[in-house]
Amino acid sequence: MEELTGQARVVIENTKPEIDDGRFPIKRVVGDRVVVEADIFADGHDAISALLLYRKENDPKWAEAPMEPLVNDRWRGSFVVTELGRYHYTILAWVDRFRSWKRDLAKKLQADQEISVELLVGAQLITEASQRAAKPDRRKRGEWASILQSTQATEQAKVQLALSEELSEFMDKHPDKRFASTYPKELVVVIDGEKARFSTWYEMFPRSCASRSGSHGTFKDCEAHLPYIAAMGFDVLYLPPIHPIGHTHRKGRNNSPVANPDDPGTPWGIGSQEGGHKSIHPELGTLEDFQTLMAKARDYHIEIALDIAFQCSPDHPYVKDHPEWFHWRPDNTVQYAENPPKKYEDIYPFEFDTENRQELWDELKSIFLFWIEQGVRIFRVDNPHTKPFHFWEWLITEVKVSYPDVIFLSEAFTRPKAMYQLAKLGFTQSYTYFAWRNTKWELIQYFTELTQTEVREYFHPNLWPNTPDILTEYLQFGGRPAFISRLVLAATLGASYGIYGPAFELCETLPREPGSEEYLDSEKYEIKNWHIANADSLKDFIGRVNRIRRENPALQGDWSLRFHEVDNEQLICYSKRTDDHSDVVLVVVNLNPHHTQSGWIEFPLKELGIDPQKPYQMHDLLSDARYLWQGSRNYVELNPQFVPAHIFRIRRRVRTEQDFDYYM
Amino acid sequence: MEELTGQARVVIENTKPEIDDGRFPIKRVVGDRVVVEADIFADGHDAISALLLYRKENDPKWAEAPMEPLVNDRWRGSFVVTELGRYHYTILAWVDRFRSWKRDLAKKLQADQEISVELLVGAQLITEASQRAAKPDRRKRGEWASILQSTQATEQAKVQLALSEELSEFMDKHPDKRFASTYPKELVVVIDGEKARFSTWYEMFPRSCASRSGSHGTFKDCEAHLPYIAAMGFDVLYLPPIHPIGHTHRKGRNNSPVANPDDPGTPWGIGSQEGGHKSIHPELGTLEDFQTLMAKARDYHIEIALDIAFQCSPDHPYVKDHPEWFHWRPDNTVQYAENPPKKYEDIYPFEFDTENRQELWDELKSIFLFWIEQGVRIFRVDNPHTKPFHFWEWLITEVKVSYPDVIFLSEAFTRPKAMYQLAKLGFTQSYTYFAWRNTKWELIQYFTELTQTEVREYFHPNLWPNTPDILTEYLQFGGRPAFISRLVLAATLGASYGIYGPAFELCETLPREPGSEEYLDSEKYEIKNWHIANADSLKDFIGRVNRIRRENPALQGDWSLRFHEVDNEQLICYSKRTDDHSDVVLVVVNLNPHHTQSGWIEFPLKELGIDPQKPYQMHDLLSDARYLWQGSRNYVELNPQFVPAHIFRIRRRVRTEQDFDYYM
Repeated sequence: MEELTGQARVVIENTKPEIDDGRFPIKRVVGDRVVVEADIFADGHDAISALLLYRKENDPKWAEAPMEPLVNDRWRGSFVVTELGRYHYTILAWVDRFRSWKRDLAKKLQADQEISVELLVGAQLITEASQRAAKPDRRKRGEWASILQSTQATEQAKVQLALSEELSEFMDKHPDKRFASTYPKELVVVIDGEKARFSTWYEMFPRSCASRSGSHGTFKDCEAHLPYIAAMGFDVLYLPPIHPIGHTHRKGRNNSPVANPDDPGTPWGIGSQEGGHKSIHPELGTLEDFQTLMAKARDYHIEIALDIAFQCSPDHPYVKDHPEWFHWRPDNTVQYAENPPKKYEDIYPFEFDTENRQELWDELKSIFLFWIEQGVRIFRVDNPHTKPFHFWEWLITEVKVSYPDVIFLSEAFTRPKAMYQLAKLGFTQSYTYFAWRNTKWELIQYFTELTQTEVREYFHPNLWPNTPDILTEYLQFGGRPAFISRLVLAATLGASYGIYGPAFELCETLPREPGSEEYLDSEKYEIKNWHIANADSLKDFIGRVNRIRRENPALQGDWSLRFHEVDNEQLICYSKRTDDHSDVVLVVVNLNPHHTQSGWIEFPLKELGIDPQKPYQMHDLLSDARYLWQGSRNYVELNPQFVPAHIFRIRRRVRTEQDFDYYM
Repeated sequence: MEELTGQARVVIENTKPEIDDGRFPIKRVVGDRVVVEADIFADGHDAISALLLYRKENDPKWAEAPMEPLVNDRWRGSFVVTELGRYHYTILAWVDRFRSWKRDLAKKLQADQEISVELLVGAQLITEASQRAAKPDRRKRGEWASILQSTQATEQAKVQLALSEELSEFMDKHPDKRFASTYPKELVVVIDGEKARFSTWYEMFPRSCASRSGSHGTFKDCEAHLPYIAAMGFDVLYLPPIHPIGHTHRKGRNNSPVANPDDPGTPWGIGSQEGGHKSIHPELGTLEDFQTLMAKARDYHIEIALDIAFQCSPDHPYVKDHPEWFHWRPDNTVQYAENPPKKYEDIYPFEFDTENRQELWDELKSIFLFWIEQGVRIFRVDNPHTKPFHFWEWLITEVKVSYPDVIFLSEAFTRPKAMYQLAKLGFTQSYTYFAWRNTKWELIQYFTELTQTEVREYFHPNLWPNTPDILTEYLQFGGRPAFISRLVLAATLGASYGIYGPAFELCETLPREPGSEEYLDSEKYEIKNWHIANADSLKDFIGRVNRIRRENPALQGDWSLRFHEVDNEQLICYSKRTDDHSDVVLVVVNLNPHHTQSGWIEFPLKELGIDPQKPYQMHDLLSDARYLWQGSRNYVELNPQFVPAHIFRIRRRVRTEQDFDYYM
């Protein structure tokens, strides 16, 4: 700071949303309105004008949206994003001499002060603006300046012109932006498709889909399951890795270090002489079979999501062809995966920092591109937190330049900051700690963080009550009521959620051993044959919940979530709503899977658009029961042996005698 | 982001303190410890090492301080600033292969796993570190690698070496920082002298210091007042502008638009044919007289502060010599200062955006340098918020390069964000809204913002219960008890505070008219003759309060301020303490100047270092009374007609029978 800086007198700071000083983009979906706020002020008392500038990344021309002052020098503007890809936004503001002049002129008139010199100043401002205007405008407006300068026009006529709307409009159209301040950063917003925010996932092992017990299921068998999945209302079918499985150090049933000859191995032990990450496990079928499955799924409005796990079995062709992509130990063996004292000898991690990393990184990118070219648009990425952050930022950015509609779900069950970092650098959705948030306090803390802080700008949560790795103690001990309440929580707290089935809908509760979160006889290591027609199945309940999600836009976003008071620690109550209050959903869940709980819930009627003077109808979309409530405090009681939850839609219009035909 | 980025795998983000992405420096005083925190993490499970780097601005070499992990990937380090000027700080962190190796080796040993290959890996790491070490170290340490590789050494000997402190120290001294991440910003801290934080100001008009009523006071007369000011315990004597005063449009008494011939004019109407901002008003004396006053003041440990007001009377030599530095109106007159409908025709503001602004800005800077060269080190700057922010940032930065000990006090009674901006860009201290914060809620809100948020990093508040422009309604109606309680609040809530005297200590309460905050017969427009020996004067009380400030380091900083509960809205209670709890001060003030108030105060004993099991002594430093209290809840009662405040020093050691000589 040794020389004089520009004449830009306006300060623009504390712009929101802005992630880590603009280092990372925010996320929105097509059709969203991006609301931007900033502190904007200058020295002295002059009036200020400000514009929000925005453009598609490759469009050099900025579009403009006006910004308006709120209070305390805070300004706000907004724009709507209409296309997939990346937009930039920034702010322009300047000391507005015309607006200052007009404001001060009005004050002087009110104080009955002399204004002849002020009118001459105004004439000058108009002349300058005319010179900035296009020719036709210019001449006509020049006449205005003459009027203010004229010795013939009456002061009344001059004042009328000076304060006219027409003059203000003209001056606003041609402001003096020579000394405008530009916010020093161009901020970025990544625009995804609607599924980035609102999606309903079902995870299923294709090899367990055979109609005949003991056989290895195929993609063809999966096709037969599509009606079942569609009836439950899922729109994403996620398959664990579908590639050839290695033999060396293959794990046996229940993660046994030694496999029997007929053990199928884990799908995450990727690669054998039959191929690697771009190949299909022969027992599942062919690439054509996979294409057919995708096409059939689309008929049911279901997208197939693939699992990308960047790791190799010792038999993966890469190991032979590219030994330099792996880490070699002093004893000339390849370093297998480990997290001491745990060893994963069936898995070789890549050495991302290898000398040839450009070649390795390009190859890994080509795996995504290969499946994208087959038509896949949704990927669940296995353990991204064990690969360098720079790698993912590069890969996702590169892929989305060509395919902005691709969705990456991050499976990073790691520490909070690493989990958030992956979302910041590009992952579209992320797994969360939801599975381990079971008490009311935990749920309120966590979902307030996810939905009411800056985190929501870049992190789309995807809630899973179970996965093939996670059978929580809450499910193990809570049984069927626990499955129902966790399903309702996942489906209503999260606009995106998923279950690992059929283990979920069949309420599988047996762990490998006490204290373990692993399933007994886990499908990760063996082929299962599920009795999906079981009368106890939650499939119809799940179908109902997912229909409620589809029919209620309030549940299709996360930002409107608000928790409400209940005088019972075992009952949780929250609402979601659309911006215009046309859809308001209130959920109450009994968190205790063993005993009936009751209590008084209390919620702010005004915030939910309810007239406190009038009764309103609570329509329980789960039971279809309707209740007439009034006021902000009402009683609820939930028995876990029936349904431990209400999903109310609030219907404000209550039928009265005026609705009858004969009234009047 | 189209090419591969570096191999630096560690993320460093969310560094604190950091103001506006590092755009502005933080402030500290000599001897402070700067504590820095950041989120530091990497992919995977590797161990990380991190260093806080710091240096004086002109020193190219970084010093290093270790950073230690707290929880949740948050790290902390600190360094002490020992010199005036500017320091830079940033962070370096890397994946530490040795620490990861040592940690994993220990885990494998505990799990009884084979470690022979691990020992070879260790040998490799030691060899690499030896190559980074200086020669003498290198050979000896090379032997360590040989031991780990040796076929003769026992595994026990190898393990003992591997896990030894000595090896860790060596490896920590020569880490592999090739792929270290550097925080992308160098953050700046400005170091001021102690007075920047802890100072006690007295504002006085020299022209009112004459011993004879009706005469114009001189610097010589001021000298005679020094013992009086020193006895009250002030260490900064701030004089309104001391320059020649203009005649054109000079204001008369009580701001009358027409002055009588004998009216002295306002000191802020700067400049006449006798000179401008570098001249002294002849009636005050000469530059030599001013030098003598400064020297005498220093004998009393008082610094003279000057008032710099960048504005001109129409008679200022600049107007004739540099007409281009002012704004000319279409009628060929100079634009005078106005804030419609208010007009200040005796004041011409500078046109900071003039074509010749380099010349103007340099001239204004030379005004500061002129007085600095006379020995002045403290400036109160008049209305800085009506001059461009860039101007001040440039000027203060330039001045402090040569004179890092200069203190700039910003008199910006403007909107909060502009007030804070001036502090961010360089003003050392700032006036505040203290004068208008009178209720308990207002005081708690405001002082929590000033002392417990990021604001404290760059904003040193200076609290003034009155100024020549501000006689608050609270003082007008509250009378003497109000003066006492506002003094105690200013002196204990703020490490820096000041009063405008003798109006303050003489409890002047008359406004120019009802509803006005201007003094009746304000000293701004006339010469006064104060009866400072008045028996009612608060001078002795002020002297006692300032002695308490000097003797209690707890009151010499603002960050430790904590408010405590009182069950009476008219009583406010708060504490300040030193970091080591060696000095703990608890203040209770009755905010109602009319009626006695009583209540129960409650404060956390542990936070203040008090053993809840033992009685402790509350020593009221105002009345010298001592009370024995126990527990966290105690009763207080304050009568405004006596002293409406307690300033307790908490003395934890209470005399018991064990203190008597004959005990034992």
